[in-house]
Amino acid sequence: MAQASTNMRLKLPITCFILEIILIILFGVLVQYNHETDAKEWYNETQSGHSNYENDFYYRYPSFQDVHVMIFIGFGFLMTFLQRYGFSSVGFNFLIAAFSLQWATLMQGFFHGMHGGKIHIGVESMINADFCTGSVLISFGAVLGKTSPVQLLIMAMFEVTLFAVNEFVVLSVVGAKDAGGSMTIHTFGAYFGLVVTRILYRPNLDKSKDRNSSVYHSDLFAMIGTLYLWMFWPSFNSAVTAHGDAQHRTAMNTYYSLAACTLSTYAMSALTAHDGKLDMVHIQNAALAGGVAAGTAGEMMLTPFGSMVVGFLAGIISVLGFKYLSPILEKKLKIQDTCGVHNLHGMPGILGAIVGAVTASVATVEIYGGGMEAVFPDVADGTIDASFQGVRQAIALAVTLGIALLGGLIVGFILKLPVFGAPPDTVCFEDSIYWEVEQSPHHTGEGTETGDVRHVKAHATDKTWALSDFTFLVCERN
Amino acid sequence: MAQASTNMRLKLPITCFILEIILIILFGVLVQYNHETDAKEWYNETQSGHSNYENDFYYRYPSFQDVHVMIFIGFGFLMTFLQRYGFSSVGFNFLIAAFSLQWATLMQGFFHGMHGGKIHIGVESMINADFCTGSVLISFGAVLGKTSPVQLLIMAMFEVTLFAVNEFVVLSVVGAKDAGGSMTIHTFGAYFGLVVTRILYRPNLDKSKDRNSSVYHSDLFAMIGTLYLWMFWPSFNSAVTAHGDAQHRTAMNTYYSLAACTLSTYAMSALTAHDGKLDMVHIQNAALAGGVAAGTAGEMMLTPFGSMVVGFLAGIISVLGFKYLSPILEKKLKIQDTCGVHNLHGMPGILGAIVGAVTASVATVEIYGGGMEAVFPDVADGTIDASFQGVRQAIALAVTLGIALLGGLIVGFILKLPVFGAPPDTVCFEDSIYWEVEQSPHHTGEGTETGDVRHVKAHATDKTWALSDFTFLVCERN
Amino acid sequence: MAQASTNMRLKLPITCFILEIILIILFGVLVQYNHETDAKEWYNETQSGHSNYENDFYYRYPSFQDVHVMIFIGFGFLMTFLQRYGFSSVGFNFLIAAFSLQWATLMQGFFHGMHGGKIHIGVESMINADFCTGSVLISFGAVLGKTSPVQLLIMAMFEVTLFAVNEFVVLSVVGAKDAGGSMTIHTFGAYFGLVVTRILYRPNLDKSKDRNSSVYHSDLFAMIGTLYLWMFWPSFNSAVTAHGDAQHRTAMNTYYSLAACTLSTYAMSALTAHDGKLDMVHIQNAALAGGVAAGTAGEMMLTPFGSMVVGFLAGIISVLGFKYLSPILEKKLKIQDTCGVHNLHGMPGILGAIVGAVTASVATVEIYGGGMEAVFPDVADGTIDASFQGVRQAIALAVTLGIALLGGLIVGFILKLPVFGAPPDTVCFEDSIYWEVEQSPHHTGEGTETGDVRHVKAHATDKTWALSDFTFLVCERN
Repeated sequence: MAQASTNMRLKLPITCFILEIILIILFGVLVQYNHETDAKEWYNETQSGHSNYENDFYYRYPSFQDVHVMIFIGFGFLMTFLQRYGFSSVGFNFLIAAFSLQWATLMQGFFHGMHGGKIHIGVESMINADFCTGSVLISFGAVLGKTSPVQLLIMAMFEVTLFAVNEFVVLSVVGAKDAGGSMTIHTFGAYFGLVVTRILYRPNLDKSKDRNSSVYHSDLFAMIGTLYLWMFWPSFNSAVTAHGDAQHRTAMNTYYSLAACTLSTYAMSALTAHDGKLDMVHIQNAALAGGVAAGTAGEMMLTPFGSMVVGFLAGIISVLGFKYLSPILEKKLKIQDTCGVHNLHGMPGILGAIVGAVTASVATVEIYGGGMEAVFPDVADGTIDASFQGVRQAIALAVTLGIALLGGLIVGFILKLPVFGAPPDTVCFEDSIYWEVEQSPHHTGEGTETGDVRHVKAHATDKTWALSDFTFLVCERN
Repeated sequence: MAQASTNMRLKLPITCFILEIILIILFGVLVQYNHETDAKEWYNETQSGHSNYENDFYYRYPSFQDVHVMIFIGFGFLMTFLQRYGFSSVGFNFLIAAFSLQWATLMQGFFHGMHGGKIHIGVESMINADFCTGSVLISFGAVLGKTSPVQLLIMAMFEVTLFAVNEFVVLSVVGAKDAGGSMTIHTFGAYFGLVVTRILYRPNLDKSKDRNSSVYHSDLFAMIGTLYLWMFWPSFNSAVTAHGDAQHRTAMNTYYSLAACTLSTYAMSALTAHDGKLDMVHIQNAALAGGVAAGTAGEMMLTPFGSMVVGFLAGIISVLGFKYLSPILEKKLKIQDTCGVHNLHGMPGILGAIVGAVTASVATVEIYGGGMEAVFPDVADGTIDASFQGVRQAIALAVTLGIALLGGLIVGFILKLPVFGAPPDTVCFEDSIYWEVEQSPHHTGEGTETGDVRHVKAHATDKTWALSDFTFLVCERN
Repeated sequence: MAQASTNMRLKLPITCFILEIILIILFGVLVQYNHETDAKEWYNETQSGHSNYENDFYYRYPSFQDVHVMIFIGFGFLMTFLQRYGFSSVGFNFLIAAFSLQWATLMQGFFHGMHGGKIHIGVESMINADFCTGSVLISFGAVLGKTSPVQLLIMAMFEVTLFAVNEFVVLSVVGAKDAGGSMTIHTFGAYFGLVVTRILYRPNLDKSKDRNSSVYHSDLFAMIGTLYLWMFWPSFNSAVTAHGDAQHRTAMNTYYSLAACTLSTYAMSALTAHDGKLDMVHIQNAALAGGVAAGTAGEMMLTPFGSMVVGFLAGIISVLGFKYLSPILEKKLKIQDTCGVHNLHGMPGILGAIVGAVTASVATVEIYGGGMEAVFPDVADGTIDASFQGVRQAIALAVTLGIALLGGLIVGFILKLPVFGAPPDTVCFEDSIYWEVEQSPHHTGEGTETGDVRHVKAHATDKTWALSDFTFLVCERN
């Protein structure tokens, strides 16, 4: 069934091998242990009064592991909602994440971590690499089901690079704060992906529309992804903040933002959906918008009250986006956004950026005391005043949107090149193009026994076997 | 199919919005960062000699995250065992947990955390809020499949309040110890839920009995819940103990209690079940009883030996309960306990309370040394002797049972009000009343092709499509 | 269907009860809290200047929990790939792990942790007990689907004992380093299991071959196991290393080894599989080989570059093993390795041992500085030179292989005794022998309605209902 062009026998191995060999060579040339992972350097630090217990490993690694679970289980399973695309959702997520975190180590290291011509790495760089990977996976959500693994690797290569550029500009040039990445991760990943999917627009995608939906079980698998994202989002937003109160506060703000978001999501889902019934799409996605929206301001003195207001609004906006805006984007703007990343990451990311700008601009020494230094160092030392920090935050949002949109445009056109093995319109959202999908012995065996082999075989050739076969039904009338 | 009264279009949004807006207002008025999450206060502490690494975040947050996973994934997936109720199990668990943790912050804060008229919050209050939520989810297990989401929210609102009252009486008035909540969480949640389900007794529930069972896949999903509860129970019981040896010891005691419980559960399951075959219901539930039973005494010097004896007994009691007691409770006492919470949380909770009372009463300075202070402060400072601590523990159990039973009675009658949209007896244990359940294209498409459309459609109208459709079978004989 | 000999009504309860009662008695006689879990001893330490925050709980327990998840969710769900063996995969994994961790506490304590005739335990012994359990679960993978739970418990009892002997010889007598267990856990568990499955060779296993494969959903469940193993492997390899740089470095080396391994796995899978399609077997297993191969050298100054080279090679070797070596082992050597543990744990374990020997032999003070003490104490204090440490590592591999092969041989013959209730060749890989498998009401109910009851019933008696029923198809021709 799969057309020759989608055959990955050479394309995928060549791409993977070339990319990995380049990575290994660059790591060999450029990357070194930092002072906390190098045996000699850390020993020398312990000689000058530090305890082994002060190694940052103990204060970042639990957060890192939570983020890691979000990247591989969270994003991976969230996208298994499609009935015939579970292998690809989890499997391509796995592949491009494993690539992106290596490439991000180099790209982010190049911009942030060079010491004497070498990139120094440790647990904090691992968290940042996972963060960058998260952005790529958001874009993956926009193009889900319509791209080959080679396209995804190429997209990841460019997106990681642009992410690192944008992150550098936003954090180091503009001087904005964005610990949880409302801008750098969510807004960037969403709008980049949306432009890519716009460029890859498929006018005949409705030929695959019967697979572009969930079945009962696939929605349960997706809930695994949702819940891990939801539970660990406090760790995500707080993973690279300053130690002490800032990290503690960020986790707690995110916790309350998400809780409030969940209630507004359920409310809006019942209010807008057919017959007052809840829609799994909303629950799986919009309930997470509170985490996105608390990404920038989470480390600030947003207060639990402020966090809940933000989460509450994020849930409402996100459900409304799924219900009313997505169909418009698809029809009018030709943006086929498979997972609705605009509603989960795009709009809530912008909301988070705005909340961050406002919260920054009203920061006072009255509220922050000596803790101002950890959150807004330039305000603390008098270089700028708080309102200008707010302006910086707004500029950061504009820069992020600009780089994401322009980058997505260019990368989208690159991905249109016909050499990457994209699936034809008729077999999008379908695992069996890129994966061996096991045939249960019953499929053929039983058919043979009861004389129905032709019918079964015929079916198997024009429709591939996948998740929806769990509800498969064949009855022959004579 | 769903009757008008179960339509949630207005009921659920109104309930969620009112509750969340009340929460937000009360948080705005009453809740503040505590000294470890407030920028100014924590900075001042660091100035007086504390390191950022001493922020309690680093010593509680990993435990918090394990507890968080138990609440959302553990409880949520444990209840997916029902064939047609996966969306509701995970989804309502998610909704009522997100509500309860906010409400619990206020209720528990009111009783335990007021400072100058304000509730001060941080990671410890987050753990306690999750604990209180756990109690609500235990009660949810008793009424699973027979209640609307609005009923569940109303139940949660009252139960959280009563939980906080009981917790205050048990810990602060009576002066009992219950770090892992054998009494305050498990006994309370179970008996509260059992009385509620008794009041909500449905004499005609057997009209839905074909859905009140598992299918192959739903049992595997449930095992995800079981294992996360099992693995993280050591974190649960130790999450709010004193730091140092107490936290370390509690985790280890729970680990051995659970391991021993698992072996006795498998033994009893094979011994009591049909043909010597293992029963998934026992494995999913009874193997966890060791964690419940170690909830009170886990922080004490129970010894690994003692922990294993307790776990071993808990597993036996729990399987016997599932096998012999639950049917009696249903027939004689009209208690329809969907998940068997009496066997997993009720009896093992009481066992845990008794073990706690006995272990407390034999505590000596010989054994505890200076560590007595952290576990039994009133015994350490000579206010009472150990045997009286045992009496306190027994009183705490009695108080807990009293408040749970009386509270459940009142709340049960409130939930009987016909306005909350409870499902009719014929469509209990059924997702499609409250959720959009996707129709796979095959359901109708294939039928059409083979001329069986009428049969399929007819089926689809009188039975909703859900988990059991994965094993659906239609064959027409001519 | 199950033959009388496979009936577990008495065999399993008797085995479980005897084993658990022996465990409890031995714990009562031999096991004590260590200085960090004992109330009195730890209090005395705090009096002599230690803070409660220095309790090792805070520096090992997060790693322990990650390892714990790998043991119960990781291994358990990885093996659910079989279509009709999900209950047994997760459930027997649960049972034998719960037994093994208790038994390992005693066996490892006997060799490593005796203090005045008592075994002292705490979080580090818990991690080591879980490690030993991991080795048993690897062997379980080799015999998966062909053994009764009683056989598995007997195997676990002997294997844990031999594991502890081997570990003692390798670490304490030979003086090798193996923090992540490339040798002691993976090589040992794999070759032990391979010999056992060789002794238990079933010439007529192809009678069950229609169940010895996956279906769509079972592969998704298995990916849960894969991803948790993959994500938490950095915690596994670093869980018992020295604190500080060593633990930090080990986690990071493993992270990069796994990432590189994932890319080479995808490349090799597409290159070798049919039509250039990816094979789930490879992704589920070979992508983990990088963690195995970094088990010995992970704590050394392997560098990220070195780690990536090792992971890259491990992925290639592992896929080639699955594709070309496993069929040969089965045909020529009569080794029926259900999960392909030779490819995931056997060969990558040996690779890891060799990498460890080489990396050790080139260690210099130039590179390690004062940190040499933590990694190679005997080299640091001049007892031996680094090249001899390399020799020790090689000897350790040889010892491990010797004990594994010989031990597996003996235990294999013990397991052949006909009293343990092994399944007949015709019903291997089948849950319904040992588990109550629920019948969905549709199975019989619908059949009745449409007059097909006899056909359905007939089917239900000669084939048990299980996972593959989700793709079940019955069509009657008239």
